[in-house]
Amino acid sequence: MMTVSQQEQLPRCFVFKKGHSEGRTHMKALLGGKGANLCEMARLGLNVPPGLTVTTAMCEEFQRCGGELPPGLWEDVLAALKEVEQAYGKPFASTEQVPLLLSVRSGAAISMPGMMDTVLNLGLNDAVTANLAKHTSPRFALDCYRRLLDMYADVVLGAEHSLFEAELRAVREAAGVKFDVELSEEDLQTVVDRYKAVYKQHGLVIPDDPHEQLRAGISAVFRSWNTPRAVKYREINKVTGLRGTAVNVQAMVYGNFSDMSGTGVCFTRNPATGEHQLFGEFLINAQGEDVVAGIRTPQPIKEMQKTFPKIYDELLANTTLLERHLCDMQDCEFTLQDGTLYMLQTRNGKRTGPAALRVATDMVGEGLVTKEQAVMMVEARHLDQLLHPQFKDAKAYAPAVIGAGLAASPGAAVGRVVFSAADAEAWKLRGERVVLVRHETSPEDVGGMHAAAGILTSTGGMTSHAAVVARGWGKPCVCGCDGLAIDYKAKTATLGGVVLKEGDAVSLNGTTGEVIQGEQELTEAGASVLLEQFMEWVDAARTLAVLTNCDTPEDALFARKAGAQGIGLVRTEHMFFGSAARIAAVRSMIGAMEVDPAAAGPSLAEIEAFQKDDFEGIFKAMDGLPVTIRLLDPPLHEFLPQEGDALKALIERLARELKTDAAMVQSRLASLHEANPMLGFRGCRLGIVHPEITSMQVRAIARAALAAQAAGVSAQPHIMIPLIGSIDELLNQIRVVRAAVADVTAAAGSSASIDYKLGTMIETPRACIVAEALAHEVDFFSFGTNDLTQMTLGFSRDDAEAHFLKFYQRHGVMAFDPFERVDVEGVGTLMRMAAERGLRGADGKLTLGVCGEHGGNPESIEFFNSVPGMTYVSCSPLRVPIARLGAAQAALKAAKAKA
Amino acid sequence: MMTVSQQEQLPRCFVFKKGHSEGRTHMKALLGGKGANLCEMARLGLNVPPGLTVTTAMCEEFQRCGGELPPGLWEDVLAALKEVEQAYGKPFASTEQVPLLLSVRSGAAISMPGMMDTVLNLGLNDAVTANLAKHTSPRFALDCYRRLLDMYADVVLGAEHSLFEAELRAVREAAGVKFDVELSEEDLQTVVDRYKAVYKQHGLVIPDDPHEQLRAGISAVFRSWNTPRAVKYREINKVTGLRGTAVNVQAMVYGNFSDMSGTGVCFTRNPATGEHQLFGEFLINAQGEDVVAGIRTPQPIKEMQKTFPKIYDELLANTTLLERHLCDMQDCEFTLQDGTLYMLQTRNGKRTGPAALRVATDMVGEGLVTKEQAVMMVEARHLDQLLHPQFKDAKAYAPAVIGAGLAASPGAAVGRVVFSAADAEAWKLRGERVVLVRHETSPEDVGGMHAAAGILTSTGGMTSHAAVVARGWGKPCVCGCDGLAIDYKAKTATLGGVVLKEGDAVSLNGTTGEVIQGEQELTEAGASVLLEQFMEWVDAARTLAVLTNCDTPEDALFARKAGAQGIGLVRTEHMFFGSAARIAAVRSMIGAMEVDPAAAGPSLAEIEAFQKDDFEGIFKAMDGLPVTIRLLDPPLHEFLPQEGDALKALIERLARELKTDAAMVQSRLASLHEANPMLGFRGCRLGIVHPEITSMQVRAIARAALAAQAAGVSAQPHIMIPLIGSIDELLNQIRVVRAAVADVTAAAGSSASIDYKLGTMIETPRACIVAEALAHEVDFFSFGTNDLTQMTLGFSRDDAEAHFLKFYQRHGVMAFDPFERVDVEGVGTLMRMAAERGLRGADGKLTLGVCGEHGGNPESIEFFNSVPGMTYVSCSPLRVPIARLGAAQAALKAAKAKA
Repeated sequence: MMTVSQQEQLPRCFVFKKGHSEGRTHMKALLGGKGANLCEMARLGLNVPPGLTVTTAMCEEFQRCGGELPPGLWEDVLAALKEVEQAYGKPFASTEQVPLLLSVRSGAAISMPGMMDTVLNLGLNDAVTANLAKHTSPRFALDCYRRLLDMYADVVLGAEHSLFEAELRAVREAAGVKFDVELSEEDLQTVVDRYKAVYKQHGLVIPDDPHEQLRAGISAVFRSWNTPRAVKYREINKVTGLRGTAVNVQAMVYGNFSDMSGTGVCFTRNPATGEHQLFGEFLINAQGEDVVAGIRTPQPIKEMQKTFPKIYDELLANTTLLERHLCDMQDCEFTLQDGTLYMLQTRNGKRTGPAALRVATDMVGEGLVTKEQAVMMVEARHLDQLLHPQFKDAKAYAPAVIGAGLAASPGAAVGRVVFSAADAEAWKLRGERVVLVRHETSPEDVGGMHAAAGILTSTGGMTSHAAVVARGWGKPCVCGCDGLAIDYKAKTATLGGVVLKEGDAVSLNGTTGEVIQGEQELTEAGASVLLEQFMEWVDAARTLAVLTNCDTPEDALFARKAGAQGIGLVRTEHMFFGSAARIAAVRSMIGAMEVDPAAAGPSLAEIEAFQKDDFEGIFKAMDGLPVTIRLLDPPLHEFLPQEGDALKALIERLARELKTDAAMVQSRLASLHEANPMLGFRGCRLGIVHPEITSMQVRAIARAALAAQAAGVSAQPHIMIPLIGSIDELLNQIRVVRAAVADVTAAAGSSASIDYKLGTMIETPRACIVAEALAHEVDFFSFGTNDLTQMTLGFSRDDAEAHFLKFYQRHGVMAFDPFERVDVEGVGTLMRMAAERGLRGADGKLTLGVCGEHGGNPESIEFFNSVPGMTYVSCSPLRVPIARLGAAQAALKAAKAKA
Repeated sequence: MMTVSQQEQLPRCFVFKKGHSEGRTHMKALLGGKGANLCEMARLGLNVPPGLTVTTAMCEEFQRCGGELPPGLWEDVLAALKEVEQAYGKPFASTEQVPLLLSVRSGAAISMPGMMDTVLNLGLNDAVTANLAKHTSPRFALDCYRRLLDMYADVVLGAEHSLFEAELRAVREAAGVKFDVELSEEDLQTVVDRYKAVYKQHGLVIPDDPHEQLRAGISAVFRSWNTPRAVKYREINKVTGLRGTAVNVQAMVYGNFSDMSGTGVCFTRNPATGEHQLFGEFLINAQGEDVVAGIRTPQPIKEMQKTFPKIYDELLANTTLLERHLCDMQDCEFTLQDGTLYMLQTRNGKRTGPAALRVATDMVGEGLVTKEQAVMMVEARHLDQLLHPQFKDAKAYAPAVIGAGLAASPGAAVGRVVFSAADAEAWKLRGERVVLVRHETSPEDVGGMHAAAGILTSTGGMTSHAAVVARGWGKPCVCGCDGLAIDYKAKTATLGGVVLKEGDAVSLNGTTGEVIQGEQELTEAGASVLLEQFMEWVDAARTLAVLTNCDTPEDALFARKAGAQGIGLVRTEHMFFGSAARIAAVRSMIGAMEVDPAAAGPSLAEIEAFQKDDFEGIFKAMDGLPVTIRLLDPPLHEFLPQEGDALKALIERLARELKTDAAMVQSRLASLHEANPMLGFRGCRLGIVHPEITSMQVRAIARAALAAQAAGVSAQPHIMIPLIGSIDELLNQIRVVRAAVADVTAAAGSSASIDYKLGTMIETPRACIVAEALAHEVDFFSFGTNDLTQMTLGFSRDDAEAHFLKFYQRHGVMAFDPFERVDVEGVGTLMRMAAERGLRGADGKLTLGVCGEHGGNPESIEFFNSVPGMTYVSCSPLRVPIARLGAAQAALKAAKAKA
C-alpha cells in the first residue's frame, strides 16, 4: 500500500498510447475502472486511441478548491495533450490537417450511475468542422458537430436535452425520414443551425476555443460527482472511501467512416455456456449508437473472419492477450476506422452460472489461473443457478409478470393456484402441481406447503415462516407480495389487476421474486462432473466446515450428498406436524401442561416414541457426523389450531381427556397467548418451567443414539439448549439433560454409554455478554443469528420488512436487509464479544458455529470466517454448496488480505 | 481490607467476657452477626454471659476436611473454654459446684433460615443434672435436662422432633395440664425417662461426656451450613461470598431461676413513632420460650422501673451505651438471673417509616450521627410509607384478604368496583370513589383510570400499561392478580371464592399486592418539617440529579414540589387521549398516513395545535428547568379502538374523510397489526417513514417554547428521539428536527431563537454498540432501560411475568425481576459500554440519564451512580423523593467504598 504522501506525488494525468502508459489495471482507485484498463491495454501494446486520464485525486482537489480545477492541473493536461497529439499524429482541433477530436468520460473506481457520462467530438467549432468536412465529407462533419452541440449543452451546460430532441424531430419530420442516419447533408446543416438558435435563445454558450471546451468538459465531469443523484446513490449504496471520479480524455475514432469501418463488442468466451470461442457481434460502417437505435442488425463476430480475416485475427490476438493478462474472460469493445482496429474498452465479462463454471474449470486446465483463482471466479448466484430449476427465458415471460414480492427462496415453480394447505394436499394427490397462495403460513400448513411446487404469500419477510420452511426444502417461494389481495371464501386472488381463480396456472420466480401468469417453461438443474471437480477445489480452499439445518432422514441424506459435514440444527418441533397422530399427542401434552401436568405422562411417552424413531433415522443418515439437536424452541401456542372450529374441537377433546370442563381448558389455552411471542415463553424457558419436556426429548435422543449404535452406526448427538440468557438457566437445563441421559444409559445396562456433546445457542444479547461463564459449562456455542438480529436491532422479522425495512433500504437508512446479510457492526460486535469471552471461559476448548439463516449467505460467511474460533456455518440443504463456496472465498480473501 | 493470609493467622476462636474480647462489631464476615455483636458488647464492659465464637473460616475448613473439625481446632476450643470457665467462675458441667452449662448457636454474616438454630443446656448428663438439682431445684434441673435431650436429638442427631413432642403431650395429658410449666418434678422425671426410651428405641446416642456433647454440637452447626434447605436458600437469594457460619458457644443463664429472675426485649426508641424512650416488655421468672407460648402476658418495660428500679437503670445505661456506640436504634434481649442482669443480644432495630425519619433526625440533633449517617438510616420503603396513604391496620384487615397480585404501584385505595373506564368516569362524576377492575388496560382506558382511586388487573406485570400509568400518577395498583375472573357482561368478578358485583366496596394494598373485601380504614400521608429537613441532607449528599417522567402541567407542578429538577421524559402520546376531539384527530392522521398521506394536513394541524398548548403549559410549570420531550414512540395501532363497534365506526368515518371505501380503510388499518409490536413499527421508525409526524411534533415544541419565552418563561426543551439503532436513523431524524425548528424560528422573525438540546434514547442493544458515532451528533443520551431490558434479555415485559418470570424467581433461576431492578450483569454491561463509547464520541461533552422505570428503584440507582458520566435519573413524580434518597445513599456508599 502506498502512503497518502506517496500518492500525492503521483502524476495528476496519466497518458496512455499504444505501447506506453504509467497506469495499470490495479490502479482503479486512482484512475477509475475505465482509465485503469485503458492504460493497461495501451501498456500491453494494443492499439488504443491515445488519451489521458485525470486522476480521482484531482476530483477530490477540485471539490476542495470550491469547484475550480486545482492550480497547475490545466498545465499538466495541456502537456499530456501534447503527448496524445504526438501519438495520434495530428494536432487537436486542427483547421488544416485532419483534426484530432476528443471524447471526455467520467469513470470512478466502481461503476456508478448518476454522474455525467460522455461528451463526444470535443474540439469542433465552425472552422474545425469545415476543415473536417474537407478531409472526410460535409455530411460526416456536420453529423459530428450536431452531436457535440447536443451533448455539450446537455452534459456540460445542464440544459434540457428535450430542447434539441424537439428540433431534431422537426427536421426528421420535414425530411420525411424515420432515422437520423437517413438525414441528408442539408438536413444536418439545418439541424446545426436550429441547435445554434436554441443556444442563443436559452443563453447557452459553447466556447469557440477547442481547449476551453476541453477544460469545461473536465470540470463538468468533476462537478457531476456531487450532483444530488450521485450523492444519493452513494448514500443508499453505502459507497464510501472513494476520492471521486477520474476523467478520461481520449482521441475520437469513428466506425462510420467508410466501409472499412465498423464497431463491435466481443466476449473471449461464450457468456451463456462458457465455450472457449470468440463470441459477439459487429456492424460495418456504424457507430455504437446505431446499434442501440436498432436500425440494422449486427452480424455475429464469426462473420468478420470472412469479411475482414486479418482484422479478425488481430482482434482475436488482442482479446486472447487481454484474457491471458487479466486472467479472466473479457468483454471488449472495439472500433474499426478505415481498416485500423482500435480497442476501446475491456472488462471482466458477465456470465451465466454454467458459463462461470465452465470458464473457471477450463482456465485451470489451460494453466491460466490457479485452482484458488478459479474458486474466486464463480459467484454464489452462479452456483444458485446451477442448483435450482430456472425459467428457460426471462425475456419471454416478461409481459406476463403480474407482480413481485421478496425473492424468499430461489428457483422456478409452476403450478395451479390453491388457497389452503388442505387443497394443496388434495390436488397433489390427484397428480396436479400446485402453487399455494396464502396471506402467510403457519406450522399447521406444512403438509400443504410440502405438497406445493411453490409458495406465494402476501405478507411476511425473508425470514417469515413460509420463507424459512421453503428455503429449508429448496422450494421456490415469493413472500410479502404487496398488492396481492386474497379472498379465501371466493377462492380468488387479485394481483396486478389479474384475477387468479383456484386452478389457474401461475409461475413463481423465487430467484427474482416475480409472479407470472400462466405456465412458463423450465430448465432442470443438475450436478455435473465439472461441478464436482470445482467443489473439490472449493473444499480444499476453505477452513470453515459447512453443516446443514434439516429435520428428516431424507433431507439429511440429500444434504450429505450436497456436501454437508453434519447437521448444525435439527428443529425437533418440525417433526411435530408430521402426522395427525403426532400433532394430536403434542396438543394433548400442551393441554396437560397447562391444566394438569400430572396427566401429561401418556402424551409425553407418545412424543418420545416418535421423536426417538426420527432421531434414529437421522443418526443413521448422518453416520459418523455430528447431529446437533435443538431442544424445543417455539412458544407452545404455535402448536395449537388458529381457527375456530379446529380449536373448539381440540378444547372439547382435551376437556374429555383431562376430565375437566371446556371453559377451563379454553381459558388455560387462551392464557398461552402473548403480546410479543418472539420475546415470550419459548426456548429454554419452556424446558425450565416444564423440565419434563426437556427430559422427554433428551431421552428420545439418548435412546435413538443407543439404537443406532446397536445397528453399527456411529451416532454423534450434539444436544443444544435454545435461548439461554444466563448461567442459571444453562445450569438448570444441563442438570436435566445429564440426568435424562444417565437415566437412559442406566436403564440400558452397565456397558451402555453415549458419546454426546452439550451446547447452547447464543441468540440473546445477554448470552453474548455472559459468554465467558456459559462457555465454561458447554462443549459448543451455536449462534442463532436470526434471533440475535431481532433483539440487537429490535426488529421483529415478521413485522419489520413490510412496515419499515423496505422503506429503509429504498431511502438509504439501511443499506441491506439484516435478516439476509448479518449486521456486522451491531450483531457482529456482539458475536465477536461472545466468541472472545467464550474462548476465554473455555480455555480455548470451545466449538463455535452459526445456525441462523445467515449461515448460507456468502457476505455473512465472510464475516463469520473472521470471528475468532469460528469452526462452522450451518444452512438449509440446498444452500450447502453455496455456503461451501462462500467459506472458500472468505478464506482466500482473508489469506490475501493477510499476505 | 485484610489479605487472605492475614486472615488465616487470625484466632480460630474469639472469647468474649465482660470487659474483654478481641472481636468487634465490624468483623461480621469472620464472626457472624451474632458473634460480632456479642464480642462488641463484652468489650464495652456489658455483662454478657461469657462465651466463645468459632470463626466462619473454620466452617469453610470443616467442609474442606470432609466434615471433620479442622486439626487443632478442638484444642483451641478447649483453651477458650478454660477462659470462659474462669470468667463464669465455675467449671463446665461440674458435678460438684454449680455447673456451667452452654448454649450452641449458628450465626452467619447475614441472617439466613435453614441452618441449625440452637442447642441449650449442653453439658448435662445424669450426674451433672443431679448436681444441678442440689444447687437449684430438682424440678429446674429436670426441666433443663429434658430440653437438652429433645434439642440434641432434633438438631445434632437429626431425629424427628415429633417423637419427643408426642411423649411430652402424653405426659401433659396424663397430668391433666395444658402447659409444660405446670408439670411437676415427678412429671418431668417421667418425661426424661420417656425421652431416654426414645433414644434407645431409635438408636440415638447422646455422649455422657459433656465435652463430647460440645464437640458434636459445634460439628452439627458446621454441617447445617450445607443442608439442602440452606444451600437452596443461598441459591435463590444469590447469597455468595460467605465462608460459612460461625458457632457461638455461651454460658447459659436462666430467667426462670427465681422471682428475682426474668427475661425481656427492648428497643432504645419507640419503633413505631421513633420517640426517644426505652420501649419493650419483660416477664418475671420466665424463659424466652414462655413468652412465645403465650401463657402469661409480659409487662411493659416501664413497669420495671417500679419493680426493679436498679435493674431498670442498669438496663437503660446499657442500652444507651449500645446505641451511642453503634450509632443506631438498638433492639436488645436480656435476662435477669437472680438479680444479675445479662445482656444476650443487640442489633439495629426494625422500625416504621415515621420512626425511621424521627430517629435519624433526632440522632443528628443529639450529635450521635452525622447528617450523612442519618441519610443512610432511612430506607426507601420508609419514605414510601411516608409518602402514600396506608391502611391503618394490616392485621385488622387480614381476614378480609381475598387475593393478591403484583404490588405494582404502592399505597392504599378503597372504592366501589367498576368494570369499564366509562363507568369509572360516570361513577366519579356522581361523587363515588371507584376501583377499576380490568383484565388489562390500554391507552383508551386512561380517562377511567385517572378517575379511579385504584386499579386492579388480572393480567400484566410490573411494567404493564396499568402499572406504568398508575405509578406515574402515584395511584395504587395491583396487577396480574391470578385467579381474578372477570365477566364484563355480567359486571361481576370472582376472586378467592368471593363474587364482587359492580358497586361492591373493595380495598387495594398497592404496597403488598393484597386485594381486600370491603372498605378498610386509611391513614393519610403528608409532608412534615422533619421530612423537609431530612430531604435537604439527602440532596446535599447526592451527585445524581433527579428528574421526573410526566405528561401534564399539573403533574409537572406536583413533581417539582416533590423535588424534581426537571422532566426527563414527556411521553407526548399520553396527551393524545386527553379528549374525544384529540383522539379523533390522531385517528384521522393515522388513517390518512395509511391511505392517502396527502390528506393528513388538517389532522396534523389539529394535533400540532393541542400539543403546542400542552407543551407551553409544561414549559411554564418547569420554568428554568429542562423538559425532555420524547417524539412519538408507540406503534400507531395502539391508538386505534380495539373493539368491534368503535372500530367499525372509525372505519366508516375515515372512509368518508378520505373519500374512499370502507374495505380499503379496513384493510389498511388491519395491515398495521404486528406479530411482535414491541419490536415493530414504532419509535424513530415512525418518524423516518412519516417525517411529517416528527416535523409536526417539533413545530409544536418550538412554537410552545417561543410562546413561553414571550410570557417571560425560561423554556428549556430537550428533544429526544426514541428507539435509535443506527447513525443513519439518527441523522435522518436530526435533519427533520433541525429543519422544523428553523422553519418555526424563521416564521417568527429574525430575533427569534430557541435554545434547545437534542438527544437520543439508548434503548436497543445496537445503540449501545454504536454509541460512539451517535454521541458525536447529540447533546444527551437517555437510557430507556425498559426496552433495553426487553431486548437484551429477550423478555417481553407483557408476557414474561406471568409465563416464566415468577417461576424463575420462585426457583432461583433469576433472583430478581429485571423490570423492577436493572440487570446489572447484562443490561448494565451494555449501559456501561454505551456510556464509555458515548463519552469518547462526544469528547466528554455528553449528558447521560436514565428515564426507564428503573430510574425510581434505589438498587438500580446505586448501579446508575457507578456508570461513567451518568448525570441524572428520571422517574414518576411520586418516586422522586425515593430516587433522591437512593441517589444520596448511592453517592455515600460509593464515597465510603472509595475511602
